[in-house]
Amino acid sequence: MPRDTSEQPTVAQTGEFGLIRALTEGRAQPPFTLLGPGDDAALVAAPDGRVVASTDVLVEGVHFRLDWSTPEQVGRKAVAVNLADIAAMGALPSSVLVGFACPGETPAAVLTGLADGMWAEAERAGIGVVGGDVVRSDNLVVSITALGDLNGLPPVTRAGARPGDVVAVCGRLGWAASGLVVLGRGFRSPVGVVNAHRYPEPPYAAGPAAASAGATAMIDVSDGLLADLGHIAKASEVGIDVRTEALQPDQRLQEVAAALGADAQHWVLTGGEDHALVATFPPHVDLPSGWRRIGSVTMPESGVTVDGRPYVTEETGWEHWKTS
Amino acid sequence: MPRDTSEQPTVAQTGEFGLIRALTEGRAQPPFTLLGPGDDAALVAAPDGRVVASTDVLVEGVHFRLDWSTPEQVGRKAVAVNLADIAAMGALPSSVLVGFACPGETPAAVLTGLADGMWAEAERAGIGVVGGDVVRSDNLVVSITALGDLNGLPPVTRAGARPGDVVAVCGRLGWAASGLVVLGRGFRSPVGVVNAHRYPEPPYAAGPAAASAGATAMIDVSDGLLADLGHIAKASEVGIDVRTEALQPDQRLQEVAAALGADAQHWVLTGGEDHALVATFPPHVDLPSGWRRIGSVTMPESGVTVDGRPYVTEETGWEHWKTS
Repeated sequence: MPRDTSEQPTVAQTGEFGLIRALTEGRAQPPFTLLGPGDDAALVAAPDGRVVASTDVLVEGVHFRLDWSTPEQVGRKAVAVNLADIAAMGALPSSVLVGFACPGETPAAVLTGLADGMWAEAERAGIGVVGGDVVRSDNLVVSITALGDLNGLPPVTRAGARPGDVVAVCGRLGWAASGLVVLGRGFRSPVGVVNAHRYPEPPYAAGPAAASAGATAMIDVSDGLLADLGHIAKASEVGIDVRTEALQPDQRLQEVAAALGADAQHWVLTGGEDHALVATFPPHVDLPSGWRRIGSVTMPESGVTVDGRPYVTEETGWEHWKTS
Repeated sequence: MPRDTSEQPTVAQTGEFGLIRALTEGRAQPPFTLLGPGDDAALVAAPDGRVVASTDVLVEGVHFRLDWSTPEQVGRKAVAVNLADIAAMGALPSSVLVGFACPGETPAAVLTGLADGMWAEAERAGIGVVGGDVVRSDNLVVSITALGDLNGLPPVTRAGARPGDVVAVCGRLGWAASGLVVLGRGFRSPVGVVNAHRYPEPPYAAGPAAASAGATAMIDVSDGLLADLGHIAKASEVGIDVRTEALQPDQRLQEVAAALGADAQHWVLTGGEDHALVATFPPHVDLPSGWRRIGSVTMPESGVTVDGRPYVTEETGWEHWKTS
């Protein structure tokens, strides 16, 4: 965290109630928010009679670095990764709640920057930040809980894929992984891939659209395409084959990979954190706008394959403790 | 955190997916849980068409100490303090989501202990732990988000108290504060007050009961009775007077105070963390079972008073950074 801000007020100087004011006052709440921050709890519309809910925790130095990203970018990412989980169930996001734990000497501007980014992404999704908590901690930890509404449709879980289904994706693959490598080598450009690492832009509306089109299974790509398809394959007890001809890296990814001696195709197949949505659909379905076919669901004994063959590298996904 | 557990498997050794299995498998979900852990998000019933939501963050060394409390007790408390916020809106708790951030060398048994305690309190409230996240961090941080259902009633905010209303409380006051002083002096008994600090037992059903009886404002006592009544007074633009004759400390609190040279009445008036519910009701209302009258709502210029006079001490509440 930048420490060259000693003349700015700190979180400890601003105090909990002052901070909560700074984080909440003057923000425009959308219609979903029936009662916003300031009381013991918020009240959010759940017109469907059910509510989709997901929570994530992000830790400075593990999930983000404030020397690589601004607080605004981290705030955007924190909200985006959680809203992507809501969209991956086929639901429309309705609200987020946020928790901040940080050292008292943290500049208050870091927290207001995080909040600004959270609000920017919330507004992009048409929702509000309806509640939160601010506490003291040795390191900076951000927790996010997102809620969403299914609009009468069944949830699209990971477990409904059937052999013969079409596998399709909406959103970018490999960009965040490319940006992470660029930043790790000490570069700050090309800005397109670097910003893709700093904050994803999940296609929220594509989740409900897929649900309406009859998607049989869906997940957001957080761990990497093959790893996340592996989650669908396991939960659905099927195999999945993807075709590299449908997964050609964007020209810009190829240029970055060439410059760094890296493999752009590998980024597309295994890079996480872009939070694209990947889903399975019944055969012959008209894919919704923005979705593109990348493969098909096969028999369970086939596993997850690329062009019909296992994809063998050191890693095709990751677990939080085991690799970072 | 206890470090004499070097032969037990750590969180890093168990891995994220193994931990999530240990935290979720074999747990009984109640009817509110339509889809539990294991997918991108959970699905919870919201029969009212609205959902009450609140989030809290608890940090080891700030909000709990694992040399003073077992992981089970910390887990119970983490859930209880958040469900109390739901009850304080007049809602019935419906579910919780949990986030764990902790060092990789944390014994896995600490996390499963936390989860056991969370499940114990969730079951006491009739709800389930429906989702969560487990990540690596330098220190142990637990985030909780609770959801609840208003069953068709308006939310009971802090803002509806009117002069002439009755002030009433349900639940214990001063016990957790007493236990904290006992633990701070190095004692481990009397177990009644010590356990009151380790985990509160909020009267969840009293929240919806108060809403049904027409409560005009409500809050749970987390910061201390006078401080939390101050939140109601400010939001409602009223004054509040409480009577010490209705707030006599329990005999056991008086014994502990005498032994420690402390003031039991002060604990009752200012001690937080018991998470009793305090509410205002229209005059002449029949208070629901378990609620007892402790004062009345006065004119705004009166402020919060005790027996008609300001209660002057160094502290009548606290903010997270400013005092701890």
